[in-house]
Amino acid sequence: MSQPWYDAAITPPDATILTAARARQAQLTKPSGSLGRLEELGVTLAAMQGTQQPSVDKIWITVFAGDHGVVAEGISAFPQVVTAEMVRNFARGGAAISVLARIWNARLEVINVGTVQPLEELAGVLDARVGPGTANFVQQPAMTSAQRDEALEAGRAAAERAAINGAQIFIGGEMGIGNTSSAAALACALLGLPAAQLAGPGTGLDAVGISRKARVIEQALARPRSHQPLDVLQQLGGFEIAALVGAYLRCGQLSLPVLVDGFITTAAALVAIRLRPELSVWLFYAHCSAEPGHRRLLEALAAQPLLELGMRLGEGSGAAVAVPILRAAAALHAGMATFAEAGVSQA
Amino acid sequence: MSQPWYDAAITPPDATILTAARARQAQLTKPSGSLGRLEELGVTLAAMQGTQQPSVDKIWITVFAGDHGVVAEGISAFPQVVTAEMVRNFARGGAAISVLARIWNARLEVINVGTVQPLEELAGVLDARVGPGTANFVQQPAMTSAQRDEALEAGRAAAERAAINGAQIFIGGEMGIGNTSSAAALACALLGLPAAQLAGPGTGLDAVGISRKARVIEQALARPRSHQPLDVLQQLGGFEIAALVGAYLRCGQLSLPVLVDGFITTAAALVAIRLRPELSVWLFYAHCSAEPGHRRLLEALAAQPLLELGMRLGEGSGAAVAVPILRAAAALHAGMATFAEAGVSQA
Repeated sequence: MSQPWYDAAITPPDATILTAARARQAQLTKPSGSLGRLEELGVTLAAMQGTQQPSVDKIWITVFAGDHGVVAEGISAFPQVVTAEMVRNFARGGAAISVLARIWNARLEVINVGTVQPLEELAGVLDARVGPGTANFVQQPAMTSAQRDEALEAGRAAAERAAINGAQIFIGGEMGIGNTSSAAALACALLGLPAAQLAGPGTGLDAVGISRKARVIEQALARPRSHQPLDVLQQLGGFEIAALVGAYLRCGQLSLPVLVDGFITTAAALVAIRLRPELSVWLFYAHCSAEPGHRRLLEALAAQPLLELGMRLGEGSGAAVAVPILRAAAALHAGMATFAEAGVSQA
Repeated sequence: MSQPWYDAAITPPDATILTAARARQAQLTKPSGSLGRLEELGVTLAAMQGTQQPSVDKIWITVFAGDHGVVAEGISAFPQVVTAEMVRNFARGGAAISVLARIWNARLEVINVGTVQPLEELAGVLDARVGPGTANFVQQPAMTSAQRDEALEAGRAAAERAAINGAQIFIGGEMGIGNTSSAAALACALLGLPAAQLAGPGTGLDAVGISRKARVIEQALARPRSHQPLDVLQQLGGFEIAALVGAYLRCGQLSLPVLVDGFITTAAALVAIRLRPELSVWLFYAHCSAEPGHRRLLEALAAQPLLELGMRLGEGSGAAVAVPILRAAAALHAGMATFAEAGVSQA
């Protein structure tokens, strides 16, 4: 039997270019270190792109949407129908991610990997429904292994479209009522944490709702289960989360840098990294969300987010707000004059 | 005798539009509060611009350059000639701020308010030299009151050019070897702090150099002096800092929002706010610099910076990296659909 596609190699950025990039930064017309984190971001992007002229002008955003059976447990402030309604909002350009994609001239596509009901044809929305939402993971695995692989494949295909179209950064977004519960459950299972540490308000639960959500997650975690990342994904994940895992893995294989968004996407990154640790060098983290569990996930991944603005919307919106920082870091690395070129004296 | 121009009224943003903007945010298709600080930024920009369709697309950057007599005390890691060399680097497009202005399509102008030597004609550089650098403020006032007023006027004129050209945000930058010493001295005098709390490495002093810098500033602070902000500016400031004070004050008068950059520009903002406290509502703060005294200045102003990336370059570079956040906040406020428009259910 052939190996699954996600077992193919992920190679690190070019070490020679990395070294040359550090040397270049030291020669740019500024006191050494004075661009702070932008210097290492520029160096990293240079090595990732294999050039001292890196650029993050071509931004690709794929938002994956899917529904969650666990919503039956009453763990969300918003009704399930909002998943589909928001897909329509994406298509009409009215959502936060639609606006952000427009102002940065980013390519935005939406993939329906599993709304409860099929959707009518919508501009900019691809139909890749794996099923009518996941099963309620408290009672049974959220999806079959075939569904999980189909969702991973939807993510893989998105990463390939991005690469083929010349994207210089990949942003994955998600929409799915109930998906903070799925993300928290996944992360608890992989990190060995109690649900109370990762269950949060999501779209707006109060303290009573959060307690209920934690109990629901604990119930699911109490079921016997494998600790293999893809098994955990199948048991507790969502179609959109599985698609993000597939997208991130394929981005690593294609040497396409990723800007991870918030709580749910970071949970997907955790699954992907547990499966293929060598992926981690290809991931940037956009922001620390106001969803309380996100900080813990970032810490577990030793990730240093770029922003902390109290955002907690998802859709890829935090990444879309942070992406100009990467763009600036790349442009500074590529475009600043050296001391010699500019005839500027050194310290 | 007529009142000086900087005594003219600064009016706050429109309160009615502010209230309507808050109501609009609550109706946009997202969980309430889920855009974090971007929501209040969008609301504030709407009120500042007097419209529910705010926009931060037209970015104006003025970098003021000037030399400092206090450099004779050996308080800088870089030689004084770098001020002029960097002005040439700005003109040729090789500096960090040049690169950042290009990628955001911002208008960048450089004003020479006082290099030690006159400069040859340079593209994009206006000659408004107030003097051949300031005097050494350890021994005498840094500038005369006439020079101070001339530098304030140079800043006023920049703000007016920005407004006339339709700028939606004003970024002031600075270049001046020695100017962290001047900024620290100014802030110590206005905040009643010892020099050791605000003297830092600047472009790269070691611990011995920082101690020396603190002693030099203490020496200057020991001279009897007025506590009136414009007197303090005259005694301890720089031409570029005075120009920033003038620019910020005029921006407030013209209802043009300002994005304050780092340590030196925040010291200028402190002077301006001490003179006209009603200016403060017109100022956003871009980032918390790695220059240690900056955090203390921001705290003194109750300012909440947008970024913390360890930058400490000046030139307006931190503001230029942060400005897309304001742009995003404005665009989200203006462009997102409401629940009613999008047919999305509420919680």
